[in-house]
Amino acid sequence: MKILITGFDAFGGEKINPASLILDKLGDEIDGHKLEKLFLPTKFVGTADLLEKKIRGARPDIIISLGQAGGRPDITVERVAINIADASIADNDGKMPIDEKIRRDGENAYFSTLPIKAIVENLREEKIPASVSNSAGTFVCNFIMYNDLYLAEKYKNISAGFIHVPYLPAQVLNKRAAASMSLENMVKAVEIIIKTSAEYKGSEDLKKAEGRIC
Amino acid sequence: MKILITGFDAFGGEKINPASLILDKLGDEIDGHKLEKLFLPTKFVGTADLLEKKIRGARPDIIISLGQAGGRPDITVERVAINIADASIADNDGKMPIDEKIRRDGENAYFSTLPIKAIVENLREEKIPASVSNSAGTFVCNFIMYNDLYLAEKYKNISAGFIHVPYLPAQVLNKRAAASMSLENMVKAVEIIIKTSAEYKGSEDLKKAEGRIC
Amino acid sequence: MKILITGFDAFGGEKINPASLILDKLGDEIDGHKLEKLFLPTKFVGTADLLEKKIRGARPDIIISLGQAGGRPDITVERVAINIADASIADNDGKMPIDEKIRRDGENAYFSTLPIKAIVENLREEKIPASVSNSAGTFVCNFIMYNDLYLAEKYKNISAGFIHVPYLPAQVLNKRAAASMSLENMVKAVEIIIKTSAEYKGSEDLKKAEGRIC
Amino acid sequence: MKILITGFDAFGGEKINPASLILDKLGDEIDGHKLEKLFLPTKFVGTADLLEKKIRGARPDIIISLGQAGGRPDITVERVAINIADASIADNDGKMPIDEKIRRDGENAYFSTLPIKAIVENLREEKIPASVSNSAGTFVCNFIMYNDLYLAEKYKNISAGFIHVPYLPAQVLNKRAAASMSLENMVKAVEIIIKTSAEYKGSEDLKKAEGRIC
Repeated sequence: MKILITGFDAFGGEKINPASLILDKLGDEIDGHKLEKLFLPTKFVGTADLLEKKIRGARPDIIISLGQAGGRPDITVERVAINIADASIADNDGKMPIDEKIRRDGENAYFSTLPIKAIVENLREEKIPASVSNSAGTFVCNFIMYNDLYLAEKYKNISAGFIHVPYLPAQVLNKRAAASMSLENMVKAVEIIIKTSAEYKGSEDLKKAEGRIC
Repeated sequence: MKILITGFDAFGGEKINPASLILDKLGDEIDGHKLEKLFLPTKFVGTADLLEKKIRGARPDIIISLGQAGGRPDITVERVAINIADASIADNDGKMPIDEKIRRDGENAYFSTLPIKAIVENLREEKIPASVSNSAGTFVCNFIMYNDLYLAEKYKNISAGFIHVPYLPAQVLNKRAAASMSLENMVKAVEIIIKTSAEYKGSEDLKKAEGRIC
Repeated sequence: MKILITGFDAFGGEKINPASLILDKLGDEIDGHKLEKLFLPTKFVGTADLLEKKIRGARPDIIISLGQAGGRPDITVERVAINIADASIADNDGKMPIDEKIRRDGENAYFSTLPIKAIVENLREEKIPASVSNSAGTFVCNFIMYNDLYLAEKYKNISAGFIHVPYLPAQVLNKRAAASMSLENMVKAVEIIIKTSAEYKGSEDLKKAEGRIC
Repeated sequence: MKILITGFDAFGGEKINPASLILDKLGDEIDGHKLEKLFLPTKFVGTADLLEKKIRGARPDIIISLGQAGGRPDITVERVAINIADASIADNDGKMPIDEKIRRDGENAYFSTLPIKAIVENLREEKIPASVSNSAGTFVCNFIMYNDLYLAEKYKNISAGFIHVPYLPAQVLNKRAAASMSLENMVKAVEIIIKTSAEYKGSEDLKKAEGRIC
């Protein structure tokens, strides 16, 4: 299977973004699945086009997008993306869209088509803190997750979803009481997420895996 | 105008729910607008029918539903309801639906049609802490918000939305470091929310009010 | 009995300090006990002298000092003051002492001589969230608590202690997810604290009241 | 130099305690300094005697005690221990002392004699989140820190102090939104703490290292 994995660059005053550092650490293949990496700037304008161009070129079976959710202590597997862009800080173009629709012809929301609860279960099995999140916010992370799922529908037979990771330890040294996670654990987490997503791809069992997890 | 306001009873081990206590304190009329109150049990089964029956009987112009979000420190005005019921605790019937659609024929999500940012602005103007929230969860609160908006569309010309309120001080006495808000401030908040919703009802200016607020 | 109650002015970028607003709201007498109020600037230099002068003039039986602990959600009754001044922000004189002893001839720490657990119990009885705190920090609040207790020992037969109060709602309007408490509840709390402190003054039962409360 | 390092066993319903797991991972020597390890049960009764016996036998130059502070996101270097035992949960003997003095003939409090701010600086230098804490609580951790410093004074020329570490990732898998730190980073942190403590032992520069850190 071919897996497209995307990650953002640093934003909001940070010097690094764990999402792109994870991409750097991942190899080109995991468990026999080929990885395509797409580094994205944290911008509203242009990133959906970069994404679509990559999808057309690489024809992935699965898209997994990564972003930083500063302050959250665990890996959060996003459940849903909503059709709105509403920024409270500037993106890396200085843009702050307010209550704008992401896609005129899109659904109000798209649910992740990754096996979100099987992923959480498998991460916990490997002692990595994880949970399902019901909001990817309304900034660029939600924007890309929404576009992942909109385009997955357009190009057919693609599973897609979004994963938020905490700050790295190096990012919280001067923040008061902020949680963090080591890069090692993040990379390990993403490998598990890739394997689990590949395993459940096209499975009728998807529902079975979606048990009581919060 | 006629405003339907709903509130839940206590759940999850609590003895009270601020939502229904607020309903008790509200009069029958605010600023010339007639209030219809609907007390709802915190249950998945039956409450959507109670809601629809009330809507058919009362024919409200606006529906505002109230619920408790224990742990949040401020009034949170919900932006969106999603088409999923996924409980991590039992409702008051002992039911715990897992990843069930709320409405087979409903949208993936509905956005609040209340002026959510004007509400936050007006609350802050009156020194009541408030913010926009991007998730009403996946328990009974999201379930009723979803049904509010589904039914508002079905019965036409109804604005609808959901407001989460914090714990009352009496609920946090034996909880470690949990935030709360006085009932007086909650009642005052809901009165402001009713007035603001009535003021913006049918307004072309709805967008104008939706400025940069997070 | 005569009770000296102190409160600070605004600091750290805030425009108000609930501590001095509480003092404004308190009457001159509570339950037959005479109240002496002392408004203190949030400064290291000079405030201990203002305090001592007031003690010599008013000869109080009890000293209760109030301060703001922004972010805490409940009334916190401080257990102990430590002999160190170590500021991470400037006081209202622009002073930032680093690891300085407060009193060369003082103890390493003084324990509050107010009935701290009876106070917490009585506050909860009246539905006001409260708990015992084991640290008043190392800024001006700890500095005044330390001086209260140092001077209480010097001038004999004085009970003394410190109470931290949360932000007021008006202070958190533009803070993300910060807890607050209404001024009404704070004033009610301080009245209960005064009554409880007077009731236990000189009591052999002090220990009895100090049950299992955290 | 000889360094005594102590760590507790699991308590409060946990199955592991990172403190003793760190001890397991440390070698017998760090930077030429000999390590003596003391595993302590999380109990009030008997542990001070175990500690004193070990001190008499090993004659350490430095004592560093480790404990778990569940919920804190970073390494916290304790500043002060207070002369009180006040438990809100049972220790591993089922004991819950309430407002008891730890030592009849001890000071109200003892300040850490480790270079607490140089430690924080050196940890951050190595990208490990750390801060100074002003309270080690009133449970067994504070009890051992107090005894460390009481005995350090009794046996002369010993520096002593206490370090709290966060939960391990494995401990928070079923806790809602709780921070954690990897064992690797904890072990690395303790090695830095040992080296820094040895470096500053007996130094006149102790003060110099105690800069503006919070």
